[in-house]
Amino acid sequence: MFILGDLRQITVIGLGLLGGSVARRVLSGFAGVKVIGYAHRASTREKAEELAVATEVAGDLSQSVAGSDIVILATPIQSFAKIFTETADALRKGCIVTDVGSTKALVHQWAAKLLPKTVHYVGSHPIAGSEQRGVEFSRDDLFEQAECILTRTKNTNRGAIQKLKDFWGKLGCRVRVMSPAEHDRILANVSHLPHMVAAGLLNANNNEDLKSAGKGFMDTSRVASGPANIWVDILMTNPKNCTRGIDGLIAQLEAFKKAIGSGDSAKVEKLLQSARKKRAALIKYKLRSKELIP
Amino acid sequence: MFILGDLRQITVIGLGLLGGSVARRVLSGFAGVKVIGYAHRASTREKAEELAVATEVAGDLSQSVAGSDIVILATPIQSFAKIFTETADALRKGCIVTDVGSTKALVHQWAAKLLPKTVHYVGSHPIAGSEQRGVEFSRDDLFEQAECILTRTKNTNRGAIQKLKDFWGKLGCRVRVMSPAEHDRILANVSHLPHMVAAGLLNANNNEDLKSAGKGFMDTSRVASGPANIWVDILMTNPKNCTRGIDGLIAQLEAFKKAIGSGDSAKVEKLLQSARKKRAALIKYKLRSKELIP
Repeated sequence: MFILGDLRQITVIGLGLLGGSVARRVLSGFAGVKVIGYAHRASTREKAEELAVATEVAGDLSQSVAGSDIVILATPIQSFAKIFTETADALRKGCIVTDVGSTKALVHQWAAKLLPKTVHYVGSHPIAGSEQRGVEFSRDDLFEQAECILTRTKNTNRGAIQKLKDFWGKLGCRVRVMSPAEHDRILANVSHLPHMVAAGLLNANNNEDLKSAGKGFMDTSRVASGPANIWVDILMTNPKNCTRGIDGLIAQLEAFKKAIGSGDSAKVEKLLQSARKKRAALIKYKLRSKELIP
Repeated sequence: MFILGDLRQITVIGLGLLGGSVARRVLSGFAGVKVIGYAHRASTREKAEELAVATEVAGDLSQSVAGSDIVILATPIQSFAKIFTETADALRKGCIVTDVGSTKALVHQWAAKLLPKTVHYVGSHPIAGSEQRGVEFSRDDLFEQAECILTRTKNTNRGAIQKLKDFWGKLGCRVRVMSPAEHDRILANVSHLPHMVAAGLLNANNNEDLKSAGKGFMDTSRVASGPANIWVDILMTNPKNCTRGIDGLIAQLEAFKKAIGSGDSAKVEKLLQSARKKRAALIKYKLRSKELIP
């Protein structure tokens, strides 16, 4: 297997916001590395060519992965099983296969079943992006100071984990490693649940009432503008953690309801103060890790 | 009663983010109008003097309102009844009393009971501000293109409503008029509920898991950094609408839970698409009204 300095070629499958940004960053930051970008749609390939996000833009899936040291899936999660199957024979021996999907447990199962034993799958989840989509929004600094979670099972190749740590580190990420189950539990609470909440807050209101929404509401609901198909994918590939997350939030809302309904100001203040302190600690952590800049 | 061009003196009671910003804006935009700023604490008065947010900074409540054409309460809502009582004798005849509080039904009740019949109470709610607090964050453009809701009952003086429309309009706001009940119902859904949700999302997670929170979570939870005492006030003076709002959101979350639990991707997509469309319509409205700038 290559060491990171020997990296010669990577393939990014799917040239959207995330895939396009990985490709751009490798092009600008990894001298001499060939970047092959695969896109299913001709219109995406045209845009990717125009924006020069990759060394080569490809429309043939199995050809696009041939000879690559790292193959990164950046398409919707529900397409991964099919892509594993269709590329299995073309992947070079020792190749590292990873992805940028937002859920991980199912993907590890698919990889174990569908990829050849001669390649190494490790999950990657760079926590970056926005509610925008498409290669036209991709940029080479998207991952700067972002957290990237790598996921591994007891069967995951240790060398491959180390290589991906180096790879994402060079893309600007702070890397953490955990199990896919742990990843999916945490992300359900800090990402998938907030998405459902944002959508729920919008759906609970009519357009006329929403006119009185201030900046606070715009921020609270921002993520709900994200692409619906991507989010269906995320929620449907992490169902148990999502429904548990909903139950946890409902319990929090019931606590507010009970305190407000019984006129217990002290309890309401305690709930609000606790949240304030947690957010202050979070901001402090993100400033320290330079993910936020003061 | 004065017409707006005849406005000679206003009093702002409470020099925090909102009160300080009203005072600054009147100073910079209303030539010849004297602005008296009252603050309870000596430390606030010192800061307000240093920042020159008012023509005169006062520490005596009833003296501060004497002779003013408009008196604006910008302290926590729970202090309003006491302020109405303590200033009642000092308010000049024909004076307009208003406030910048986030709930309105209770305040109208207090005003009807505690203010003399010779003055006119109208509720004001400029939907502006941030999670920051204190006169040091006040600025004279805080209300630029913000919505300001005026509230009136069937007994509210029409001339006073018109004067306040002109006043907030000159401060940069788009003004709407509605009943206090309607105001409190809408604001519960677009502001008070999102605040409880933001707090609930933080409280549902431990500090370690929160480290994986991305930009989406930071935005969704931003309002939870707001001052707890102000928000206790808001929630406790709008209890029925808040608990109804919670029930409405729980119903939305249960819809997600049911669809995800039963593997109904089509339903999940429908919920997400509906939210996306509502937010797109909202952004369009805010661009048209210049509250958002493209």
